[in-house]
Amino acid sequence: MLLQRAGVNVYRKAPRAATAVHAMATQAGGPKKVLIVGGVAGGASCAARLRRMDEKAEITIFERGPYVSFANCGLPYYVGEIIKEQSALLVANAAKFNKWFNVDVKESTEVVSIDRQAKQVVARDVKTGAETTYPYDYLVLSPGGNAVRPPLPGVDLPGIFSVKTIPDANAIKNWIAEKDAKTAVVIGGGFIGLEMIENLVHRGIKTSLVEMLPQVMPPYDPEVVEPVHERLRAKGVELHLGDGVAGFEAGPGGKGLVVKTASGKAHAADLVVLAIGVKPETSLAKAAGLELGGRGGIKTDAHMRTSDPAIFAVGDAVEVKDYVTGEMTLIPLAGPANRQGRIVADVITGNEPSTFRGSQGTSVLGLFGMTLAATGASEKTLKRIKRDYKKVYLHINNHAGYYPGAKQIDMKLLFDPKDGKILGMQASGEDGVEKRVDVVAFALQKGATVFDLEEAELCYAPQFGSAKDPVNMIGMVAANVMRGMHPLTNWDELDLQQVAADPNAVLVDVREPAELEKVGKVAGCVNMPLSSLRQALGTLQDKDKKYYVYCQVGLRGYVATRQFLQNGFDAINVSGGYKSFQQIISPKL
Amino acid sequence: MLLQRAGVNVYRKAPRAATAVHAMATQAGGPKKVLIVGGVAGGASCAARLRRMDEKAEITIFERGPYVSFANCGLPYYVGEIIKEQSALLVANAAKFNKWFNVDVKESTEVVSIDRQAKQVVARDVKTGAETTYPYDYLVLSPGGNAVRPPLPGVDLPGIFSVKTIPDANAIKNWIAEKDAKTAVVIGGGFIGLEMIENLVHRGIKTSLVEMLPQVMPPYDPEVVEPVHERLRAKGVELHLGDGVAGFEAGPGGKGLVVKTASGKAHAADLVVLAIGVKPETSLAKAAGLELGGRGGIKTDAHMRTSDPAIFAVGDAVEVKDYVTGEMTLIPLAGPANRQGRIVADVITGNEPSTFRGSQGTSVLGLFGMTLAATGASEKTLKRIKRDYKKVYLHINNHAGYYPGAKQIDMKLLFDPKDGKILGMQASGEDGVEKRVDVVAFALQKGATVFDLEEAELCYAPQFGSAKDPVNMIGMVAANVMRGMHPLTNWDELDLQQVAADPNAVLVDVREPAELEKVGKVAGCVNMPLSSLRQALGTLQDKDKKYYVYCQVGLRGYVATRQFLQNGFDAINVSGGYKSFQQIISPKL
Repeated sequence: MLLQRAGVNVYRKAPRAATAVHAMATQAGGPKKVLIVGGVAGGASCAARLRRMDEKAEITIFERGPYVSFANCGLPYYVGEIIKEQSALLVANAAKFNKWFNVDVKESTEVVSIDRQAKQVVARDVKTGAETTYPYDYLVLSPGGNAVRPPLPGVDLPGIFSVKTIPDANAIKNWIAEKDAKTAVVIGGGFIGLEMIENLVHRGIKTSLVEMLPQVMPPYDPEVVEPVHERLRAKGVELHLGDGVAGFEAGPGGKGLVVKTASGKAHAADLVVLAIGVKPETSLAKAAGLELGGRGGIKTDAHMRTSDPAIFAVGDAVEVKDYVTGEMTLIPLAGPANRQGRIVADVITGNEPSTFRGSQGTSVLGLFGMTLAATGASEKTLKRIKRDYKKVYLHINNHAGYYPGAKQIDMKLLFDPKDGKILGMQASGEDGVEKRVDVVAFALQKGATVFDLEEAELCYAPQFGSAKDPVNMIGMVAANVMRGMHPLTNWDELDLQQVAADPNAVLVDVREPAELEKVGKVAGCVNMPLSSLRQALGTLQDKDKKYYVYCQVGLRGYVATRQFLQNGFDAINVSGGYKSFQQIISPKL
Repeated sequence: MLLQRAGVNVYRKAPRAATAVHAMATQAGGPKKVLIVGGVAGGASCAARLRRMDEKAEITIFERGPYVSFANCGLPYYVGEIIKEQSALLVANAAKFNKWFNVDVKESTEVVSIDRQAKQVVARDVKTGAETTYPYDYLVLSPGGNAVRPPLPGVDLPGIFSVKTIPDANAIKNWIAEKDAKTAVVIGGGFIGLEMIENLVHRGIKTSLVEMLPQVMPPYDPEVVEPVHERLRAKGVELHLGDGVAGFEAGPGGKGLVVKTASGKAHAADLVVLAIGVKPETSLAKAAGLELGGRGGIKTDAHMRTSDPAIFAVGDAVEVKDYVTGEMTLIPLAGPANRQGRIVADVITGNEPSTFRGSQGTSVLGLFGMTLAATGASEKTLKRIKRDYKKVYLHINNHAGYYPGAKQIDMKLLFDPKDGKILGMQASGEDGVEKRVDVVAFALQKGATVFDLEEAELCYAPQFGSAKDPVNMIGMVAANVMRGMHPLTNWDELDLQQVAADPNAVLVDVREPAELEKVGKVAGCVNMPLSSLRQALGTLQDKDKKYYVYCQVGLRGYVATRQFLQNGFDAINVSGGYKSFQQIISPKL
C-alpha cells in the first residue's frame, strides 16, 4: 500500500488503524522547503495535505492576488448578491493556514522568476515592488489560468470586466452601483458567462449574450444545450449566437459601451463582461524553460511532475489526460485541481504517490432553475477523434409521475458499440439531473457498461426517483440496442428528404392523433397510433418497405418497433422521438 | 451476447443496431402460454417485456385486487392528499396493457391453486366466486407480500388499518373523514409506518408511534436514525420506542381505540395504522409444493426459476441473495422486483437470460423534509455475520458552505479493512443525501473501494456540491485509515470510563473554547484548541500517554491527530467528532 522511500517520510502501514503506531518523519538533510505558487484550489489542497504528511516541512504559498484560497466559483453569485458578504468567499485565510497548517502564506506576492539550477525563486511584493529570493527543495506551480482578453479595439475601455478574482467581482459590483447599470452584454456563453447572465438578470439588469459559436456551453453537444437556449430566451436574455465580438466603443456621449460584432451588429450596454475563457498561466514555467504541451499548458507526468523533477504543476495551468479519449487537454475544473494538489503532496512526502488518472470533465451548471450536467466525452469530441460510438436519447421524469412535481430530464448517453462501455453522458432538466450524471460519472470511472447501468440499484421512493430510475432506463435502452433487440437511429443520421422521396420508406408517428395536433409532428409522417398498431399491422401489406418509427420521447417508438419487427416488417425507432426532433432538427429549420 | 435456444425466440445480434435485421420469432408448438399471478411491479414488468420479446405469446395477468400495476409506494401520499386523485396511482390500467401489450389482465381474480402436473391453474373471480381453469407453459408468481397482522386481542376492531392496497388507503381516508379523526397511533416505524406518520401529520392528525425496537427504520443502524428520531419529535410525533403492541380495545363509550402495549401503557387514538411489515405471500406456492427458503420466501435460482422449471417467482414473495453478505434474505423493494420481472421475460423468451445479481437493499425515505438513505450492509448486519469491517463517520455540508442554504449530511461508510472494498453506506440530511448514496450504491455494485470514492469526479458547482464532494471526502477519510495515516476509533469502541480512569489516557477536545461552551463537550475532556495545538505540543511532556482526539465533525481531529503523531505522541482520532458522540452515545445516557 505504501511506497517507502529512503530519506523521505515513511509511514508504516498499521495492521488496524485503531492501534496504529506511526514512525516519525525522518529527514535527510533537514526539513524540506516547499514553495507553492498560487494559493487557490490545487495549491491550497497541496499545502494542507503536505502539512498533514510532514510536520517539519517548510511550506510557503505565494498568492499574487490579495486572497489565498478564495472561492472563485462563487464570484458570479457574489456579483448577483446571492452570496451577500465577500467574507463568505474566503474559504481559508492566511491566518487559518498558519494556525492549522503552519503554512506561511504570502498574499499579494508574485513569483516572477525561477532559477532551476540554484533551486530558488524571486518573488515580488506587488504593493511595494520589493523582490526577495526564496530557495526550495520542491516547487509547486499552481498559477491557474488567465481570463482571455483578446487584443480587440477598445478592449481596455472602462466598463469591460473579467470575472477571475474578488477584485474583479468588486469592480463589477461597484460599476453597477455607480453607473446604475440597467443593461449588460456578456461575451462568451460558457460556465462563467452563463452564471454571470443569471446573476445580472437577478440584479434586474437586462442582459444579452454574444457568443461566437452557434451554441452556448461549447463542451456540450448542440442539441443538449437547446433547452438552455430556450430557458435563456424565456428569461428575456437576447442570444446573439454564431457572432464573434469585433471590438468595443464608448457609447453616445461617452455613456455606456457599444459592443461591435463580426457580423456588423452593435449592442449597447452599461456593462460588458468578458467570459471568453481562460488560458493557462504559463509565463513563469515558460521563462524557466519547463516543457509545455501541445495545448499550451504545462506538461507533467502522471505524478504532476514537470520536465524538472523538483518542480510540480497542478490545476488550470497544466495539461491533463482526457480519461475517455486519452488525449492531452485543458480542463479547468476545481475537483481535478484539488486531486492533483493532493497527489503532489503524496509524491513529495513519499506517501504512496498515487497517479492522476486523468479528468473526465465532469461538470454542472445551474441556470435559472435548470441544471445542465455532463461527464466524459461529448459526441463532437468522439466525432473529432473518429472514435466509434453509439448514442441514445431519453426524455424522462426525474421521479415517479404519480407524485406531484415531476420534471422532465433530457439525457444523452454515448457508449462503445463494441462492448457497451460508457463514453459520456449529458443531461439537462430542472431537478435530479446532476445526481444521474454523478452515477454515470462513477460508472465511467470504473469502466462500466450500459448493462451495469441497466441493473444499477438506486434509491427509490416516489419523490426521489422511479422503480426504474432514469439511469436504469437509459441503460436499458442502450442495452437493448447492444443486444440487437432495439434497432435505433437518430434524427441527425436520418435524411428526412431522402425518406420522403423513397417510395419504400415510411416515417411513422405512433403517438395518438391528439398529441400530433397539440405538440406538432414531423412533416410527411404517417400516423399509426400505438394503441391500435397491432390491428393496423394485421392488415398492412407493404413488407418490403422500411418503417422509421417515432413517438414523443422514444418509449412507445420502441414498443411499436418491436411490433413491426415481430410481424415481419423492417422497422427502426428514432431515438428520443419528437422531443429529440425538436432539439436536434428544429433549431436548424 | 445472446443465448440461442432451439424452439424459443431467437434474435440475431445486429452488427450495428441502426441496420439490424431481425430474425422472426419462431415457435415450436404454437404460441407460449404465460400466466402471471400478481400485476404490480415485478409481474407488470415481466408482462411488458415478454410482449416486446415475443409478439405471439399468450400472456395473462391475474390480479386479486381491483387494480393492476398500481403505485403502492404512493399510498401514504394518497392518504396524505399530497397525491390528490386515485387515478394518479394507476400506473397502467388493464386497457393500456391490452392495447399496448396485448396482455389479458384479469383484475379482481385470484389464482387459488396450481396443478403442476397438468400445468394449469384455477382462478376465482373474487366478486362472483366463479372458478376457471387456465393452462400454462410458464407460470410467473408475483404475489407480493401480505401486511403482517398479528393475532392480538382486538386486532380486527374497526379503525385498525393496513396500507397495502388502494382499497386500504381509501378505507383510511373514509375513516378520517367520517370519524373526523384527530389522533392516530402508527404501529411499526419502518418505511410505510414513517411515511404514514408524515402524511397523517400533514392532514393535521396528532400521531404517535409504537415501535417494538428501540429505533425506527430497523434495517438502519441506531445512531444513523437518531436524527430521524429528533425530527419526528420536533414535528410533535410522540415516540414510544422499545415497546411492542399487546392488543387493542375500543375507546371509552365505543369512541375511538386504545392501543395497549407490552409495557402496560395505553395510547388512545381515533385511528390505528398497522405497519409492522410484510411477509411473503407464499400460500399458493406452498400448496403447490414449491420449495421455500429459510426466511419463508419462495426459493428461486438466479434466473428466478422455482423448484419447478416451468414456474418462476419474483418480487416481495421471493428470497434473494444479499449482494454484500451472500445470505439469502427478504428485500421487499420495487426496483429489484422490476429487474426480476425483466429477467424472467428474458429467460422465457430465450433472450440472453441475465441473472439476478442479488439485492443491495438500496433504499430511501423522505420524512418531514429529511432524507434517509442507505445501500449495502449495515453495521449490525456485519456484526451479526461476524464479518470484519471498518467504519467512518462524516458530517459535512451538502454543498459549498459559501453558497447560501448548505445543509449538513451525516454519513456512515462501512468497508473491508483488507482491501477497502465498500460494504455499505447510510446517510441522512435535508438535501443531496440520496444522490451520494446512489453513487456509493453504484460503487458497491462494481466492487469499488474507498480509494475509488476518493478520486471520483462528480458534478461541482457551489449550489450542487463541493470541489471535494462529500463522496470524495468520506472516501478520503476511509482511504487515510486504510493507508494507516489516520488512526481512527469510534465512540462505541471507546470505553470512556476506562479512559477517564487511566492516568495514561487523555481525551482531547481540539475545538475552540467557545464551541465547547455553545455546543457541549464530553465529560472529562481536556481542551487543546487546534488553532494553538502546535505550540501546546511543543511544551507537552507526556510522550507515553495515549491521546484520544475529537473535534466537532472529525476533520480538525484528523489534522490534530497528525500533529500529535508527528510530534512523537500516540494519538487516535474519534470518528465523526462530537456530532457522532451526540448520535451514538447521548441517546444512551
